Amino acid sequence: MSDQIKYLLDESRMPKAWYNIAADLPVPLPPPLHPGTLQPLGPSDLAPIFPNAIIAQEMSTERYIDIPEPVRDVLCQWRPSPLFRARRLEKLLGTPAKIYFKYEGVSPAGSHKPNSAVPQAWYNAQEGVKRLATETGAGQWGSSLAYAGGLFGLDVTVFQVRVSYDQKPYRRALMETWGARCIPSPSPETDYGRAVLAEHPDHIGSLGIAISEAVEVAAKNDDTKYALGSVLNHVLLHQTIVGEEAILQMEMAGDDPDVVISCVGGGSNFAGIAFPFLGQQLRGETTKKRRIVAVEPSACPSLSRGKYAYDFGDTAHLTPLVKMHTLGSDFTPPGLHAGGLRYHGMAPLVSHVMELGLIEAQAYGQTSCFEAGVMFARAEGIVPAPESTHSIRGAIQEALRCKAEGKSETILFCLSGHGHFDMTSYTNYLSGKLVDQQYDEKELAMALSMLPKVDA
Amino acid sequence: MSDQIKYLLDESRMPKAWYNIAADLPVPLPPPLHPGTLQPLGPSDLAPIFPNAIIAQEMSTERYIDIPEPVRDVLCQWRPSPLFRARRLEKLLGTPAKIYFKYEGVSPAGSHKPNSAVPQAWYNAQEGVKRLATETGAGQWGSSLAYAGGLFGLDVTVFQVRVSYDQKPYRRALMETWGARCIPSPSPETDYGRAVLAEHPDHIGSLGIAISEAVEVAAKNDDTKYALGSVLNHVLLHQTIVGEEAILQMEMAGDDPDVVISCVGGGSNFAGIAFPFLGQQLRGETTKKRRIVAVEPSACPSLSRGKYAYDFGDTAHLTPLVKMHTLGSDFTPPGLHAGGLRYHGMAPLVSHVMELGLIEAQAYGQTSCFEAGVMFARAEGIVPAPESTHSIRGAIQEALRCKAEGKSETILFCLSGHGHFDMTSYTNYLSGKLVDQQYDEKELAMALSMLPKVDA
Repeated sequence: MSDQIKYLLDESRMPKAWYNIAADLPVPLPPPLHPGTLQPLGPSDLAPIFPNAIIAQEMSTERYIDIPEPVRDVLCQWRPSPLFRARRLEKLLGTPAKIYFKYEGVSPAGSHKPNSAVPQAWYNAQEGVKRLATETGAGQWGSSLAYAGGLFGLDVTVFQVRVSYDQKPYRRALMETWGARCIPSPSPETDYGRAVLAEHPDHIGSLGIAISEAVEVAAKNDDTKYALGSVLNHVLLHQTIVGEEAILQMEMAGDDPDVVISCVGGGSNFAGIAFPFLGQQLRGETTKKRRIVAVEPSACPSLSRGKYAYDFGDTAHLTPLVKMHTLGSDFTPPGLHAGGLRYHGMAPLVSHVMELGLIEAQAYGQTSCFEAGVMFARAEGIVPAPESTHSIRGAIQEALRCKAEGKSETILFCLSGHGHFDMTSYTNYLSGKLVDQQYDEKELAMALSMLPKVDA
Repeated sequence: MSDQIKYLLDESRMPKAWYNIAADLPVPLPPPLHPGTLQPLGPSDLAPIFPNAIIAQEMSTERYIDIPEPVRDVLCQWRPSPLFRARRLEKLLGTPAKIYFKYEGVSPAGSHKPNSAVPQAWYNAQEGVKRLATETGAGQWGSSLAYAGGLFGLDVTVFQVRVSYDQKPYRRALMETWGARCIPSPSPETDYGRAVLAEHPDHIGSLGIAISEAVEVAAKNDDTKYALGSVLNHVLLHQTIVGEEAILQMEMAGDDPDVVISCVGGGSNFAGIAFPFLGQQLRGETTKKRRIVAVEPSACPSLSRGKYAYDFGDTAHLTPLVKMHTLGSDFTPPGLHAGGLRYHGMAPLVSHVMELGLIEAQAYGQTSCFEAGVMFARAEGIVPAPESTHSIRGAIQEALRCKAEGKSETILFCLSGHGHFDMTSYTNYLSGKLVDQQYDEKELAMALSMLPKVDA
């Protein structure tokens, strides 16, 4: 076909290893610190909440880490995922730019999240763990772990941020269909949840609080470990299968991106598509100077407005300190519909490459993102998740810039998931009820002033 | 991989023609009759509501009909769809049978329905039609036509059966996101809708009533045509791309089904997977005596309990009379969750091959089907649409029969769609609120007694 729109890799070309950008960084990543001693963390410090294989990946500087065969056997149910050329969107925009997107909504849970949920569940099952506790925002991660845990015989308990639990009841139904237990957070089931509820009985919740609850459950129960859906090095590692495939698929298309774009919340989806391309540049394997753009919500702009500093990953300060762009662990982001992007911090690896000037950040309001999402749905047929509408907004902006400048650049973005469980958000948008939300500047200043004091 | 689970066809092997079983029938299909004259219908009788190309397909006896290139260009966004081996389900059941399923949930609308919505929208656009009116039950067809109409610049008006409109608000949001207008039926927008509401202000609706409303709108407006999502020959024709692909994929797997199973409502999904396999048998191209099984809901069992007779396709008696298995056009099926199976009649072609003894029918209650659906979701990861749970129930029954008989037969079923927009049904099932529904025997007897009197 002359106007090809779909690039599918044969299953035999599904990557056999994950790519670890730690091997190629010009400056090493600042180490995580123990929350008590403020000393660099050792593997044993993480043993109460993670299995050994995951801890080893978290600390590894090996460039490639093999994907275990039983994990590949599950991933190949929907992988390699398709790469599409968005020809109808290009035409609608009247842009000379070429727009490609990698589509991760083909997984059973409808997003990129199973790429890490499956290996995390498998490694835990291998080490005899019986139960996983986790947090979820919009529910993409919680449902993915529910799915993956079920495959390997693990019980899964999910603390879901309350505002998303209320906005997206179908996500809870999905988790329960796969056999998981889903609890709105803050909850009366943990010491920390009870403490938050005592002070704010109507708290809408945050990823930081839900992480604290899940970590508490894992730390207190011998048969239970914790699983995180973003932020940490091993999660970003698992997502690089997305970008590794995209490199092969862009070759199939006889093209090479000038701009690589993806939304960022905790950073795993962004790193998944971006790090393999960035790695080529760091290793000098390409002369192309690609721009790599992270798109975040203007209501929770950790990369654009956060401080690069050591901070806690959770609100109860149970986690290690990591150096990252943060709005402060006490900051509660507004209840925007892209629940997966409502996180006060940013993956240390993403923050680090931002500090090194290797990537750039843009921030958009949610009405502008839903506008882009509806335009995309009508042109390309796929209804995107609210998080993914940020990637689309970013791609459209770049395509319109190309139009203004008369440049036919190649744009690649990751469409991290579909919006089938987020249709209430679309109903609100289409009926004019959706508004841009703003964080409170005073609350942000306060949260930033309370960052832990660490010399590093 | 030794334990392969996914069989993907290369895009170049996507069928270039639809298969028309009318060419291979041992006895010709009884003709449709004009509702006024009771004489066989001519093409001009259908011209007010269908474009010429569709009318020609409806009446064709050519064995293969080419798929237009612009239609293929859209279909190839998600086609060829994958064929999976359900190894984890087999293991769970402890069956020696091999279970394969063809998965149609990969389309933008999440079901097989776009296979016909795309060509129907394209043929209408080619002939200068500006607007399409249609009916929908659960919303699978309405959302598919909303998607397809949008691609070719057509306005789409969907009359959705009220019980489904209320049960599945996300489906309406999906249709609106794609730009269609969605109206609960019976509605005050048509003469027939007003008449029904005058008598039964709280009527839960039925596909028969919604069809009447959509046909009325098309008949009264010159720029508007009607589009049907099942039952008619041309719709079944468009769906045969599913079975044509499955034949190639079963060859890839080095296997051949002993039993082909799918759910039936109007019949298009069933015919899509079954007719190409049945055609091989009718042409003597295989010596294998395959069983072909249609699974319907016990609350709306047109094949199992209906009468094979001439009847109207709609409740207002605006449509031609077709010979089919029918529960009577005045029969209102209970409000079961598999809204796509809530139809009083059955495709004439499916009814005809049933009468000829070429296929068999089974009926199951909805709790038994949801039980099968949850078992499947936990084993295979995909959450099926309520309609598709009937196919799974049928496949599990056959697999358990094989276990009891010690036979390692090959079972193939079509998983017509995912259940992402039906999660309320799962919540009801998981919380024990879902019950089997029964039609009223007296109502059925009454509806059957009122069938039109036709000598044929």
